[in-house]
Amino acid sequence: MGALRLPSLAHLLTPSAAVRATSSGAHLRPATLSVAASLSGGAGRGISTQSLAKEAPSSPAADRKASASPECAVTPRSVDFNAWYLDVIAKAELADYGPVRGTMVIRPYGYAIWESIQDYLNVKFKETGHSNMYFPQFIPYSFIEKEASHVEGFSPELALVTIGGGKELEEKLVVRPTSETIVNHMFTQWIQSYRDLPLMVNQWANVTRWEMRTKPFIRTLEFLWQEGHTAHATPEEAEKEALQMIDVYKKFAYEQAAIPVIVGRKSRAETFAGASRTYTIEAMMGDRKALQAGTSHNLGQNFSRAFGTQFTDENGQRQHVWQTSWAISTRFVGGIIMTHGDDTGLMLPPMIAPIQVVIVPIWKTEDDKTGVLNATSSVETILKTAGIKVKVDDSEQRTPGWKYNFWEMKGVPLRIEIGPRDVANASVVISRRDVPGKPGKDFGVSMDTSSLVGHVKNRLQEIQTSFLQKATSFRDSNIIDVKSYEELKAVISEGKWARGPWSASDTDELKVKEETGATIRCFPFEQPEGQKKCFMTGNPAQEVAIFAKSY
Amino acid sequence: MGALRLPSLAHLLTPSAAVRATSSGAHLRPATLSVAASLSGGAGRGISTQSLAKEAPSSPAADRKASASPECAVTPRSVDFNAWYLDVIAKAELADYGPVRGTMVIRPYGYAIWESIQDYLNVKFKETGHSNMYFPQFIPYSFIEKEASHVEGFSPELALVTIGGGKELEEKLVVRPTSETIVNHMFTQWIQSYRDLPLMVNQWANVTRWEMRTKPFIRTLEFLWQEGHTAHATPEEAEKEALQMIDVYKKFAYEQAAIPVIVGRKSRAETFAGASRTYTIEAMMGDRKALQAGTSHNLGQNFSRAFGTQFTDENGQRQHVWQTSWAISTRFVGGIIMTHGDDTGLMLPPMIAPIQVVIVPIWKTEDDKTGVLNATSSVETILKTAGIKVKVDDSEQRTPGWKYNFWEMKGVPLRIEIGPRDVANASVVISRRDVPGKPGKDFGVSMDTSSLVGHVKNRLQEIQTSFLQKATSFRDSNIIDVKSYEELKAVISEGKWARGPWSASDTDELKVKEETGATIRCFPFEQPEGQKKCFMTGNPAQEVAIFAKSY
Repeated sequence: MGALRLPSLAHLLTPSAAVRATSSGAHLRPATLSVAASLSGGAGRGISTQSLAKEAPSSPAADRKASASPECAVTPRSVDFNAWYLDVIAKAELADYGPVRGTMVIRPYGYAIWESIQDYLNVKFKETGHSNMYFPQFIPYSFIEKEASHVEGFSPELALVTIGGGKELEEKLVVRPTSETIVNHMFTQWIQSYRDLPLMVNQWANVTRWEMRTKPFIRTLEFLWQEGHTAHATPEEAEKEALQMIDVYKKFAYEQAAIPVIVGRKSRAETFAGASRTYTIEAMMGDRKALQAGTSHNLGQNFSRAFGTQFTDENGQRQHVWQTSWAISTRFVGGIIMTHGDDTGLMLPPMIAPIQVVIVPIWKTEDDKTGVLNATSSVETILKTAGIKVKVDDSEQRTPGWKYNFWEMKGVPLRIEIGPRDVANASVVISRRDVPGKPGKDFGVSMDTSSLVGHVKNRLQEIQTSFLQKATSFRDSNIIDVKSYEELKAVISEGKWARGPWSASDTDELKVKEETGATIRCFPFEQPEGQKKCFMTGNPAQEVAIFAKSY
Repeated sequence: MGALRLPSLAHLLTPSAAVRATSSGAHLRPATLSVAASLSGGAGRGISTQSLAKEAPSSPAADRKASASPECAVTPRSVDFNAWYLDVIAKAELADYGPVRGTMVIRPYGYAIWESIQDYLNVKFKETGHSNMYFPQFIPYSFIEKEASHVEGFSPELALVTIGGGKELEEKLVVRPTSETIVNHMFTQWIQSYRDLPLMVNQWANVTRWEMRTKPFIRTLEFLWQEGHTAHATPEEAEKEALQMIDVYKKFAYEQAAIPVIVGRKSRAETFAGASRTYTIEAMMGDRKALQAGTSHNLGQNFSRAFGTQFTDENGQRQHVWQTSWAISTRFVGGIIMTHGDDTGLMLPPMIAPIQVVIVPIWKTEDDKTGVLNATSSVETILKTAGIKVKVDDSEQRTPGWKYNFWEMKGVPLRIEIGPRDVANASVVISRRDVPGKPGKDFGVSMDTSSLVGHVKNRLQEIQTSFLQKATSFRDSNIIDVKSYEELKAVISEGKWARGPWSASDTDELKVKEETGATIRCFPFEQPEGQKKCFMTGNPAQEVAIFAKSY
């Protein structure tokens, strides 16, 4: 679970308090917040939206932005990363707090990012031979108890249904925190012989874990995810599957989300409750904390032995199946926000962005208006036809400057401006979100279909590449090789990641965590050549491990 | 709720009993069931899968099929509709029973039908201006109590979480049965002025209703659905939206599912708990019972008044918003099964079918095998490239005859057979699932790309059209106009739908229900011309109503 420095909402939001807050009229929408209220932004306090509108201390940095367009102003990322994150989520309308402590409402703009993730992965899962299906979310309590380390890992986090249809239930029902138990219960009924294997399924679902310290997207009481579950005839096949799926996640992270994750194996202490081996992709956030962004577990025969999931092999022998499970959740949306972005707000990689291009038409006179709007509409059609996600902001209530700030804060990769002079020249101005000022602008781009489409597609590709490059060099400059525990402590205290040879005990690992707040994020697949000596014990070491503080 | 003649699983499946059943080795997969067990099929008893493998009385009709291919044999639809339905669900691997009473596991083949539904509707929802998002599923109990008729309608069906993270909760949490309350709680925070309206969102989610009498897909304790929620500035806009969405559902039913639903308005007694008006699409199942297949509610200001969801109008006045909600669920999958299909199993309309064409290669000698499999692979590629959903069944463990039976039972619209002679002639044999024997076969269809693709596409279109025509004439021949209560009783007792002028009281409506088992399914939008007299009271009537027994 890493260092617990996350803001706690627990004391602020009992359900009944939340209801009261609402009926007393606490409102969040930027357009109607007073400037002062919109600037309080929960800076550094991780407070709930309900309190956002009630308290009004302001930070100097935020005040500077206020004069321009208060609704778009977020606490600068360089001033307070956590406040920036919460501001971006609120102002860009990505998510909101639900009435029950620790729950989250995913708003359309945030949900559209999740849909981008789903669209990509869903295709990859099917290409690799998996079928979608759906398991019920209510699990008999007795199921959870069957696998010893599983119950130990999950029992403190369970939500339990005890009343149904007005009656006390004979057996408490667990609201699924993950589905390995019920999956095995069903697999025992579907798997008879080796011919039924491999069995490879996936579900897109909600899961519930009663977390004490929550943070939007990163750790919420209920979240959305996909969970893959497979059963195989041999340990080799299960291992191959677990590795294949962590590779699917890695490719997604690099190619779509522009997040240069480190792929590796978890330490024993950090392995999933019930797994033999856990593979992970670890991402470095903008504050250099690590985020576990996806995991793939080789479950061995742990669950199949607990549930009796057996098959008859080719020799007529009964054997327990070998299993995997793997998941990516809405947490990944938080990872995208915290990897990219700058002082003025969100920055979305083009492959993930719900809106890739925003068009802002500009006019002063009614005469100009018709021509500008016609050109806007034509440019919109050209880009949509080319498969580019376009949004036109032609509202008359806001100035172009306000719109620029607003869509920059929302992280739209490209902006197209169309004014009367552009119409006269049959050209447009294109601005990159990630390159401020003139260097990011292309003037006089022809409205001609092929040149416009080509230009926009090239720019989007450049931005995508640039995001990954920037994140990679940031990552690499913040991973430091260490040769001793003292060096590790220094590196961690600077907020960086430490990489060093490790063959010490679980107890030593716990000691590092207690003394520095850092955990082993993974033993990376990419290992340096040569002999290694454990920086903690001086004994020979097979591998280097990466240590970092994490979300 | 209609006549309660549905099978009850309640006494069979307490959670702990389910666990025992599994560990004692009750298995469902056709390939390993004994013939006798596979034929018990729960005929007429609506029993659970757990009991399927344990009891073995057989019906004569089923025995006849058994000699051919026991795993594919279902109770003929003409012999016992309910047993047929449960058999089809089990044998075609559409769904299975979950360990908790009344819950359902949706297996890949059944889930793929749901994905077809999702894919179509998701596009339509976005085209009509709605955005997807996600609301938490835990709702404070106090929310449910705020709207009087809502709590009355839903409180008997609630599942309640009372323990979270090992502690008794201060306020019980409802596992969402529907989301109007939490939606309004959030809308109060997002809606300030008329400029924020309309607000139009949708979510794909699971919902829980503690039903006592369950039936796979049709009524389960947990089910999947989409729920749309909108807020508008005027009652006219809300009404227009409610009508627009029932029309989206209607088009989906006709054009995709080939189900000729009747669209209309619910009676007061059958209106959604909390709605001012409920529109419905009512489908006639193969046993002539009605299925409410989708609903769209004009909620008026009922929830906005209960939750204080207000906006400032153009004149600066505070007003409550006007709302709608609308939903289609996994119940629709049950509707597709029960509308189409015949004695030998499922029949899926091509637009919905997860597999539109199954290819069965046929060979005897190893010499023939290579040529046949090459041709099969080439035909598969041609059809896939044309966007047709193809499955090749080249397993060597089953005979072609077994495969024919199996894929017919699974409802695949078209089968392509490729044998050595076909390879020699560069042609294939194509068989329609819905036309048995020679009349449904096309011999010597050329393997040439354009003629093969054209042929297959035409046949799929013909099947789609034929399904709708067949269902429409079945529906029309089973809706009978009535002029008196006596006539209605006669029609209902024959299992048909009765249509007659109605302006009687809610009490009279209840009387019809108690005496005949039929309810008002709807006041159809399509009304006969001319003056009408209520068949119950003799008073003038504005409209005819349709009465039927229902699921």
